[in-house]
Amino acid sequence: MPGSDLGLFTDLYELTMMQAYHEAGMHETAVFSLFVRRLPETRNFLLAAGMETLLEQLETLRFSRGDIDYLASLGHFDESFLGWLADLRFTGDVFAVPEGTPVFPNEPILEVVAPLPQAQLIETLVMNQIHLQTVLASKAARLALAAGKRPVVDFGARRMHGIDAAIKGARAYHLAGIAGTSNMLAGREYGVPVLGTMAHSFIQACEDETTAFRRYARRYPQTVLLVDTYDTLDGIERVIELAREMGDDFTVRAVRLDSGDLGELARQARARLDEAGLTEMEIIASGGLDEHEIKRLIDSGAPIDAFGVGTSMGVSQDAPDLDIAYKLAEYAGVGRLKLSSGKPILPGRKQVFRRSEDGIFCGDVIGRHDEDQPGEPLLRHVMAGGRRTFPEPDLDDLREQARDAMERLPEAVRRIEPADPPYPVEISEQLRRHQDEVRQAAIERESRHRGPDRDPGGTS
Amino acid sequence: MPGSDLGLFTDLYELTMMQAYHEAGMHETAVFSLFVRRLPETRNFLLAAGMETLLEQLETLRFSRGDIDYLASLGHFDESFLGWLADLRFTGDVFAVPEGTPVFPNEPILEVVAPLPQAQLIETLVMNQIHLQTVLASKAARLALAAGKRPVVDFGARRMHGIDAAIKGARAYHLAGIAGTSNMLAGREYGVPVLGTMAHSFIQACEDETTAFRRYARRYPQTVLLVDTYDTLDGIERVIELAREMGDDFTVRAVRLDSGDLGELARQARARLDEAGLTEMEIIASGGLDEHEIKRLIDSGAPIDAFGVGTSMGVSQDAPDLDIAYKLAEYAGVGRLKLSSGKPILPGRKQVFRRSEDGIFCGDVIGRHDEDQPGEPLLRHVMAGGRRTFPEPDLDDLREQARDAMERLPEAVRRIEPADPPYPVEISEQLRRHQDEVRQAAIERESRHRGPDRDPGGTS
Repeated sequence: MPGSDLGLFTDLYELTMMQAYHEAGMHETAVFSLFVRRLPETRNFLLAAGMETLLEQLETLRFSRGDIDYLASLGHFDESFLGWLADLRFTGDVFAVPEGTPVFPNEPILEVVAPLPQAQLIETLVMNQIHLQTVLASKAARLALAAGKRPVVDFGARRMHGIDAAIKGARAYHLAGIAGTSNMLAGREYGVPVLGTMAHSFIQACEDETTAFRRYARRYPQTVLLVDTYDTLDGIERVIELAREMGDDFTVRAVRLDSGDLGELARQARARLDEAGLTEMEIIASGGLDEHEIKRLIDSGAPIDAFGVGTSMGVSQDAPDLDIAYKLAEYAGVGRLKLSSGKPILPGRKQVFRRSEDGIFCGDVIGRHDEDQPGEPLLRHVMAGGRRTFPEPDLDDLREQARDAMERLPEAVRRIEPADPPYPVEISEQLRRHQDEVRQAAIERESRHRGPDRDPGGTS
Repeated sequence: MPGSDLGLFTDLYELTMMQAYHEAGMHETAVFSLFVRRLPETRNFLLAAGMETLLEQLETLRFSRGDIDYLASLGHFDESFLGWLADLRFTGDVFAVPEGTPVFPNEPILEVVAPLPQAQLIETLVMNQIHLQTVLASKAARLALAAGKRPVVDFGARRMHGIDAAIKGARAYHLAGIAGTSNMLAGREYGVPVLGTMAHSFIQACEDETTAFRRYARRYPQTVLLVDTYDTLDGIERVIELAREMGDDFTVRAVRLDSGDLGELARQARARLDEAGLTEMEIIASGGLDEHEIKRLIDSGAPIDAFGVGTSMGVSQDAPDLDIAYKLAEYAGVGRLKLSSGKPILPGRKQVFRRSEDGIFCGDVIGRHDEDQPGEPLLRHVMAGGRRTFPEPDLDDLREQARDAMERLPEAVRRIEPADPPYPVEISEQLRRHQDEVRQAAIERESRHRGPDRDPGGTS
């Protein structure tokens, strides 16, 4: 896998457009807005994530010698353009909401203000990275909300979409309220707490289950024993026997159930453990869990203390993608939009103002960046001239801010069932007027080539 | 993002189990089988992918000094184990079906035969990488089959799950029959053909649409012009005007439609282009397409020559994950399985035998690795002692083999609608007998600790 020279993580058309801009002298400042057009049906809010790792990538963005040689081999690019590209660094400004901010449709998560060719180049990287981490943080937030005070642990690395998704995902999950991850590389790269139990293979490879339990319990005092390899309740009995055998040396923290009727098995396991005096021993459940199943288990009173979640969170199974867009909103000081059907753009630089009542968020207004509106402005100036404006925040601090922000969402929005009505988001008068003006200007400009009888609003 | 020292791309429990194996002297040979338990409802077959990039990762697998330091900081691992880990290389054997082989439930895609701690360590990496690429290749195969002779191009990078997914996905797509990708890094890393058009932002940033078209058409002779920024049919008129203006210098290859009723717009665009004598100019459609929409457009006779596909393929929207498993099947020469409910394991080393009739695949038998069965054995010895047994095959050759294999699938299996009945897969007599023996041995071993009145088959 390539390292951090991510210049080439872009689409071919970004580079051909860049060359055309370069040759036409179109180096003036562009504003691109990153936003999600609409929420998936199963999301009441999104938790914005990925900005911090993106800023680091933008700071080190460049083309390696090998990248330039590869580009030269394609025949699309002139030597003078390639020479310019070899020296290119990102020198633009970025405005973004803090990681862990709940966001809603059409609200800019991030705006790039940079010379047009640069802002164009980074489209693929910006979208890919914010999309990935926002998809996964938004799903994880639902798991965390469903589990309440019970910890949820990420076991997903094996079925997440590649290495980048697995490690950045584990970070996004922790940001969103997940307790920790099994993923060691995420632990090393981002300081996410690493957690783990044991696998069926360990038990299968040992002479028998009791030998496997004994070996693990002696080696790892605070460990978790997996009890369903052969028969869950027999597994519980063996844990109890081992506790008797080891006496004070027995400090196993929990058992893990990974198959069968988890609620019923947890109840039976709890009863047997309690009867044997192992009242402190916790029960962890895993195996095909999602937020709905976790809520159902908790509502049914199942004595489960923590949850391990893999695939449903790992690929955000019910909503693996977002309708995310990165759109030119202004160039050379003039607002821009397109008129194609059904996909309106809010022109110019913008700000999101979030109002609260008694500490609870009660509605957002998307306005022009420099207008006065009540409420907290969400977008901050996080990069100036290609450099962060402040050091990378601590993940734990971001996590706390995210928790605080989610606690301030209206109760219906925090639920895993659809919120009806959805969280209110309005467009300010000023922005609406600016949008009308820009649209009118585009229509007038384009109508020089158009007959008078056509509807300029689109084709459908 | 980390480089190729992927030792730490693993779960914590793999490492704690490894240390326990290491200390107990459990270094004998293990067999792990990688397979998918069942197909998603919307898949008739899977296209196995990812083995070649995995073999490269296994050849270079190691722990860096920084990894070892990180592990030491966690307090779980002894110095002697960490010293052993620092020198560890993968020295095992791998048997795998060739990339681009159609596979079905329970068929081993890959088997690892290696010292137990090594085979355990690589679980996360093996699953993650084969899962990713098999998910994406299997989805792409459906797009390619739906589009028939019309090329499909991958525009997905911006909404795929991270950088690794985007570049390995583009490779998997090409393997599965996708013509090329917009993703430059995939072009450089894997030689996937790169293709591209232009974006709305280019047109918005220029003075007007005609100026944008003129600039691009002069700079890139065989280019594709995007016509829906303001009004699709007006865009077509401008392309026609530009063709008149430029005369013989006009060599634009195609127009791209990206919104609205693509079938109807394609028909109207075709009529206008033909009327203007631009009969060679192609029409490319993009914007929210999946295999069903492509089939519908083609069935309706829409004059579309090629398709650009992004998100639906990029995250395999209808089936973003597979129920993939990597399970211990043998240790120290003894078959292993677990008895937990509903997830049977086929013990020991296995082979898949694929029978044909008149060149069409008619059924598979999963047998023991050394038994005699009619049909072509699919699993090959691709790695011995941690080294590939043959050089990495050319992606084009794999692509041709994949196309040939897909053409040999029964017609109902190649359709995008569910095949009923599904492709037949049987377990051989010998393997069934072995499974019974291993299960019986496990029951007897475990029953030393179990009362006589319990059903050993599981808890549900």
